Amino acid sequence: MSKQQPQRPKARLPRGLGDVSDGDVTDRQEMIATITAVYRRYGFQPLETPVLEYLDALGKFLPDVDAPGEGVFALRDDDEQWLALRYDLTAPLARFVAEHRNDLTLPYRRFQVGPVFRQEKPGPGRFRQFYQCDFDTVGSRSMAVEAEACALLSEALEALGIGRGAYEIRINNRKVLNGVLANAAVAEGDSPEATARRSHVLRSVDKYDRVGMDGVRLLLGPGRKDDSGDFTAGVGLSEAQIDLVVGFVTAGSGAGSRGEVLDRLRSLVGDAPEGKAGVDELDTVDQLLTAMGIGSDVVTVDPTVVRGLDYYTGPVFEAVLTEGSFGSVAAGGRYDDLVRRFTGQDVPACGASIGVDRLLTALRHQGKLDASGAAGPVVVTVMDRQELPRYQAMVAGLRAAGVAAEMYLGNKGIGDQLKYADRRRSPLAVIAGSNEFGDGTVVVKNLLYGKEVSQGITDRAEWLAAADVQQTIPAADLVAYIQRLLAGPAAQQ
Amino acid sequence: MSKQQPQRPKARLPRGLGDVSDGDVTDRQEMIATITAVYRRYGFQPLETPVLEYLDALGKFLPDVDAPGEGVFALRDDDEQWLALRYDLTAPLARFVAEHRNDLTLPYRRFQVGPVFRQEKPGPGRFRQFYQCDFDTVGSRSMAVEAEACALLSEALEALGIGRGAYEIRINNRKVLNGVLANAAVAEGDSPEATARRSHVLRSVDKYDRVGMDGVRLLLGPGRKDDSGDFTAGVGLSEAQIDLVVGFVTAGSGAGSRGEVLDRLRSLVGDAPEGKAGVDELDTVDQLLTAMGIGSDVVTVDPTVVRGLDYYTGPVFEAVLTEGSFGSVAAGGRYDDLVRRFTGQDVPACGASIGVDRLLTALRHQGKLDASGAAGPVVVTVMDRQELPRYQAMVAGLRAAGVAAEMYLGNKGIGDQLKYADRRRSPLAVIAGSNEFGDGTVVVKNLLYGKEVSQGITDRAEWLAAADVQQTIPAADLVAYIQRLLAGPAAQQ
Repeated sequence: MSKQQPQRPKARLPRGLGDVSDGDVTDRQEMIATITAVYRRYGFQPLETPVLEYLDALGKFLPDVDAPGEGVFALRDDDEQWLALRYDLTAPLARFVAEHRNDLTLPYRRFQVGPVFRQEKPGPGRFRQFYQCDFDTVGSRSMAVEAEACALLSEALEALGIGRGAYEIRINNRKVLNGVLANAAVAEGDSPEATARRSHVLRSVDKYDRVGMDGVRLLLGPGRKDDSGDFTAGVGLSEAQIDLVVGFVTAGSGAGSRGEVLDRLRSLVGDAPEGKAGVDELDTVDQLLTAMGIGSDVVTVDPTVVRGLDYYTGPVFEAVLTEGSFGSVAAGGRYDDLVRRFTGQDVPACGASIGVDRLLTALRHQGKLDASGAAGPVVVTVMDRQELPRYQAMVAGLRAAGVAAEMYLGNKGIGDQLKYADRRRSPLAVIAGSNEFGDGTVVVKNLLYGKEVSQGITDRAEWLAAADVQQTIPAADLVAYIQRLLAGPAAQQ
Repeated sequence: MSKQQPQRPKARLPRGLGDVSDGDVTDRQEMIATITAVYRRYGFQPLETPVLEYLDALGKFLPDVDAPGEGVFALRDDDEQWLALRYDLTAPLARFVAEHRNDLTLPYRRFQVGPVFRQEKPGPGRFRQFYQCDFDTVGSRSMAVEAEACALLSEALEALGIGRGAYEIRINNRKVLNGVLANAAVAEGDSPEATARRSHVLRSVDKYDRVGMDGVRLLLGPGRKDDSGDFTAGVGLSEAQIDLVVGFVTAGSGAGSRGEVLDRLRSLVGDAPEGKAGVDELDTVDQLLTAMGIGSDVVTVDPTVVRGLDYYTGPVFEAVLTEGSFGSVAAGGRYDDLVRRFTGQDVPACGASIGVDRLLTALRHQGKLDASGAAGPVVVTVMDRQELPRYQAMVAGLRAAGVAAEMYLGNKGIGDQLKYADRRRSPLAVIAGSNEFGDGTVVVKNLLYGKEVSQGITDRAEWLAAADVQQTIPAADLVAYIQRLLAGPAAQQ
């Protein structure tokens, strides 16, 4: 590069950020439209807060216990105040509710969809900008909020084509575990020591998937040495205490109805008031779900749902897909300290977030996304540049009939124009030159049909029919003919 | 405040940023859906780039000549690189095209919708985060791109309910003005002096609305003293030169067809090659628009469209509403240096942006937005907390029938519950207590109907009918009854 040449910037994105295009945008938009239609049917109202907030209004800390060091993108405004890109949609909701607390009608039920930002190390499937799709009910202590949240998640997943049995919604309650730990004399009250001990128990139980139940028992007791020889310190519980904790964690594994699991939990919490309150709360949720016709095949009481228990203050729930290993695709719970940072008051709240991007990945793997969103427009090719107005009129006619169409706008020959149409995933190309204009005809080339049909054809007559992907038709019939073709095979008989 | 009390953050938004809620979110979403459906029908594909980009990839400078000091929100990443919030959707498009130039099929036609950010002084109606809704065609020099852009804007505005005659699309061409100035020996070529002189002429002409044609003549000639006595230096043109420039600016004011205006422009540019090329381009656009059935009642050739001429390199166009004074609601043009910053190559591009937020304001003023998006859910009130499952079952039944509904989730009495429903703009409230449960009935209170009808009623019989806003019906008929009520007056006959 010579010295005179100006330094050119590189055309690239910062790490952990990605472009989304074509069918992927359409799929996400359709998914969001489907989900938010369910949110609306449940009475939630839309809210859109800006991407930027004051840093002190957002708070600096992320709720996710797995990554306490996660950061936010912060910057100084021209008046020297610190702003930040929102890292979730709950912190802005808290700001909104605190700001408008005097004129907001409670309970306030809002949904919000939009990108959030984390200044963290990106990884596979881990982006620094991603979508959240939240609904929250603010100002109600009723367990109907939890029951409705579970019903809503079920309805949203089914609206997306995930059938009954292909997903499960699991609900647990922080208070029940606290009750079990109190009943087992492991930890009681709000002292820092009790809180730390409960966290230690939670972390140990959360490792069940990796270390198995014997591993969890060691982690709850004397500690555990892993295969590499590294030692993890244990909580130091007695065998009897461990039995109670393990009894809690496995209370759902014999399955049975929600009521049966609740009976087991009730015996485990004994007389611990918080534990009894927790079981009563789940009991109310169970009754309301039953009233809505939602059985244990859809929503289960599952004490292994531990993730997030540190953050939520009461019930916690998640939705998982039972096929594949996509983990939880939605999660939420009750958090009663929504606006305390601002006002010092306790305002009860409960909400959940649907992981749109993870769900998209899962549905794509399961082949449950139809590719219609990726189809390109009908391309009207240009053989004779002098006749541009005629081609343009054809395009206008197609669009007026509701058909997505475009005239080829480049300056390549017909072969390249058809390649272009192919790359655009155009279903059909229209071709007309001086012959056709003279005859009053046009040629319609069926780009998708030939491709789809040519796979695995053995019969010769069938092959000939499939190869017949090009038809000469009267120019006046163009719009009607194309509408018929696009309507699908049934309409072509 | 005592010293022990922790410092609490204020719940507030940074200046120039706003929350959008309820019907306003819905209206904007519906508008965007309507517009992007037209974009798709014209063959544009969706693209979503992230909100953050590298600062050097975006470039620091905004195209808008009116506000050269506008800044961007920039921040340092944890690897010390500078990132910025995008200030428009064109700079990210340039980065995307340059980054993928080897595998992108040209012409590339994309649309993008999303928030953009400007670190500038906020003012009335001037926000630091706002929506853009762009479509661009990259890689084509064909004037069909301009013709299609005008046709698309027309179709989009009409799809939003702005009828023929209530808007006008005006097209001009930078090259024509350059030709007139060359022909008048005012400025020719790419020297800094010529460029500065052309800019000075543009700025003078752009003041027409404020200073009138006599004022423009002074600004083009010796200079002008305003009412306060301040003097603005003139361009220093001769009377003959001024006549040519004014002839250009007023070439469209006698109206007439696009062809007639083009004839006048052709005589003004004389033999200046750039000017002739510019008129030829507009001529092609005219022919293609005519082929699409779009006459001078929809798209006019209008040399007073000056704004943006500094930025665009060829045709420039804007859409204005003819009712009210909302100014331009969409604007665009051709800019052939899209990726030059990155690659040094000229890649032709032409696109436009629809001002969603300004259009929303205009449609609201004109009463063209129906308020259906603002309607709240049917509220099932709770008289007897012991019967929660019964209320919950009613809500579930309504939702299953596609009716937006919610059970009241707070803990207030029935009066407050009805007030809540009213503030939520609920059309109907459902009321049932022990009497109704005993009878197998429910009460449905019509909240909207009574309100709408009570305005301006003079006839007594009519008033009685309107006041009859509360009906007791069999509980089993609830869903069907409510569906009938919500279907509107016609269905209630």
